[in-house]
Order: sequence, then structure tokens, then C-alpha cells
Amino acid sequence: MTRTPGVGDATREAILRLAADQASVDGLEGLSIGQLATALGMSKSGLFAHFGSKELLQLATIEHARRRYVHAVLVPALQAPRGIERLNALCDSFLSYVERAVFPGGCFFAAAMAEYGGKEPGPVRDLIAECQHQWTSTLQRAATEARTARQLKASCAPDQLAFEVEAALLSANWYFHLRSDTSYLDRGRRAIRSRLDADATPTGRLLLHSLAHPLRRA
Amino acid sequence: MTRTPGVGDATREAILRLAADQASVDGLEGLSIGQLATALGMSKSGLFAHFGSKELLQLATIEHARRRYVHAVLVPALQAPRGIERLNALCDSFLSYVERAVFPGGCFFAAAMAEYGGKEPGPVRDLIAECQHQWTSTLQRAATEARTARQLKASCAPDQLAFEVEAALLSANWYFHLRSDTSYLDRGRRAIRSRLDADATPTGRLLLHSLAHPLRRA
Repeated sequence: MTRTPGVGDATREAILRLAADQASVDGLEGLSIGQLATALGMSKSGLFAHFGSKELLQLATIEHARRRYVHAVLVPALQAPRGIERLNALCDSFLSYVERAVFPGGCFFAAAMAEYGGKEPGPVRDLIAECQHQWTSTLQRAATEARTARQLKASCAPDQLAFEVEAALLSANWYFHLRSDTSYLDRGRRAIRSRLDADATPTGRLLLHSLAHPLRRA
Repeated sequence: MTRTPGVGDATREAILRLAADQASVDGLEGLSIGQLATALGMSKSGLFAHFGSKELLQLATIEHARRRYVHAVLVPALQAPRGIERLNALCDSFLSYVERAVFPGGCFFAAAMAEYGGKEPGPVRDLIAECQHQWTSTLQRAATEARTARQLKASCAPDQLAFEVEAALLSANWYFHLRSDTSYLDRGRRAIRSRLDADATPTGRLLLHSLAHPLRRA
């Protein structure tokens, strides 16, 4: 494959950006090399040369979406101090990413998990599962650090807590989109705050309550 | 359209059953009249005559799935007394429906909501939103009845509680399928029990604890 370095990378990035946006609405199976080529004013064979197969395009699209997710959700949240503040910041950051429509169809990974969850294993499904695992591990690690710092009770099970806060985040994403109603993001915020409160120690609760109230933000 | 009454209905039902099963795995957009016809040993035009368009097939598939959902989830749960026991039974019944693989790809409506949430409004999306609304209203009504019967605290907000239990149910469904791991259904059961416990009055808690423990069932 002949390509001009730099220019080729920029083209590849433009293709992947559009592919990820479209996949958040129509699914990764719905990706069409023909439609992407038309939208970008490229030839189908020119676009195909960048990836080689639909599956390789899907995998590259997921990796691109992962970079956008890290930038939009993780980088800002990891500014917060370790522990309960970081756990809260991760949730907050996720809901803000949904609200800001970083992907037009809602969370790219929520959509991809829903699309591939019931399908047979394969490279695309495996990569999606790996991305989801990375995210829930990040939540779980923040919960473990909060417990170690005695901001969460010793009885708190970080895996269960991570499952429950992730559930509220996913549901806020689904209902916000299905009903085009931002009040579902506030329901998510309320769910997170009361779930963290329930397992917090007095120290943890003090830290949480010193943060801006999730429903009265600047 | 000429058809033998009875026989035509049975054929239509067989088509819809297969369509709903396939849609739970590959999505409603992924439904193919050609593939369904092949799988059922029918001609494409014969199958087409039953519905008239892909959209009408999708709508009929959703109505069929709704009947299966009512039968599998609602009918058994509505045997439980009104209030907190019924709310608990609805959740329990949903997780059992996922575990029994009533639809091979997991909850049909969770998949449909994820598929259509980010798309433009239209008859298919509207019908899915209506089905989801019916389900969350059922949860909310059970919570309201529980509060009226003083099984849930006066401070409990039934819409928020319904949102949170539904979140745990949906997430249990996604992760159970993505990771092929039944422990996610138990995480869902644990989340529901502790969420109901948190808002229950002593009377409500007594009723809940008199039920079989969700993780130690016969």
C-alpha cells in the first residue's frame, strides 16, 4: 500500500471518526465501506485500502473510539484525588460525556456491548469485552482505593459497587436517548450519589458532600 | 391475500417467533425476509405476503415479543401480593427470564432499546419506547403501592426507585451475555435486594426477608 505519511494518517483518522459516529447510531454491523466512502468523497477501493476488510475497519473503529473515550471520560476524572472522589468523578465524567454527545448515538461502548453481547465470540466481540472490562476495572479500582482509605466501609464489595454504579450510568445513557430527556441523566446522578452515600464512611461522606451537588452544577 | 384461517395464523406465529429470536441476537434492523424464508422453508414472496414490508414485519415482531414478555415475566410476577413483594417478584421474574434464555440473545426489549435509542423517531422506535414505558410504569406502580402500604418509606420516590432497579436488571442482562457468566445475574439480585432494603420500612423489610433469599433458591 502506497501512502503519504501524515496525509494518510489524517485520512485514516477522518474515516475512523465518521465510522465511530455512525456506529454509535447504527451499530458496528451497520458500518458500510460504501456509505463511508460517499460521505468522505473517497472511492470505495481507496477507503478499503486503508483497512482491508470490514472486520479490520470495525476493530480500528473500536480502537479509535477507545482513544476518544479515554480523552473524554478518563483523563478529566483522573485529575480527582484517588478514592471516593475519583470514583464519583468517573461517574460524573461519564454522564457529562453522554450529555455532551461525544458520540451522536450515545455511549459508543454501551451500544457496542448491546450489539455484540448476544453474538458468538470473535475478534470484534472480544475487543468490546476487553474495553468494557478496562472501564469496570477502573471503577472497581477507585472503589478499592476508597475502601483502603476508609472512605468506604470495610463491608463494601468493590466489584458489586462497580456493577451497580455502571448499571445506573448505562441506564441513564439508554433512557436519555430513547426518550430524548435529560432528566434521566439527573436520575443517574441521584442514583450514583445515594449509592456512594450508602457505602461511605463519615469521612467518605464528608468528601462527597464537599463536592458540588450533582444536580446543582455551575 | 388468500389464506386458510388457522393455518395462516400458525405460519405467521412461526415466522414471528423466529424473527423475534433472531432480532434478539442480530437486531431488528438485521431481520432479513430472505433469511427467515430460507430458515422456514418458505418462498420469500410467500413470507412477504404475511407482512407487506420490513417495517410491518418489525412492528409485528415487537408485538409478538411483547406477548412472550408478558407471559414469561409479568404473568408469574403478578401472582405476588401488591406492594414490595410484587416489586421484588417483577425483578426476580425478569432475571429468571434472562437466565432461562426466553430469547436466545438476551432480553429482546433491552436489545431493541439499545438499537433504536440513538436513531430518529419512527414507528419502530415509538413502539419500543411504548413497551419500555409500560414495563417501567409497572415497576413504578408496584413501588407506589408499596409506599402506600407503608412497606416503603414515605421519602421513597417510586420513579427513581424504578429507574434504579431497572438499571440493575438491564446491566445484569448485558454482562451475563457479554461475559457468558451467570454471576452477573446474582449481582443483579444482590443489587435489587439491597436497593429495596434501603428504602423499606421495618414492615417492608420483614416481608422481603420472609421471601426466599435471592441467592439461595430452590
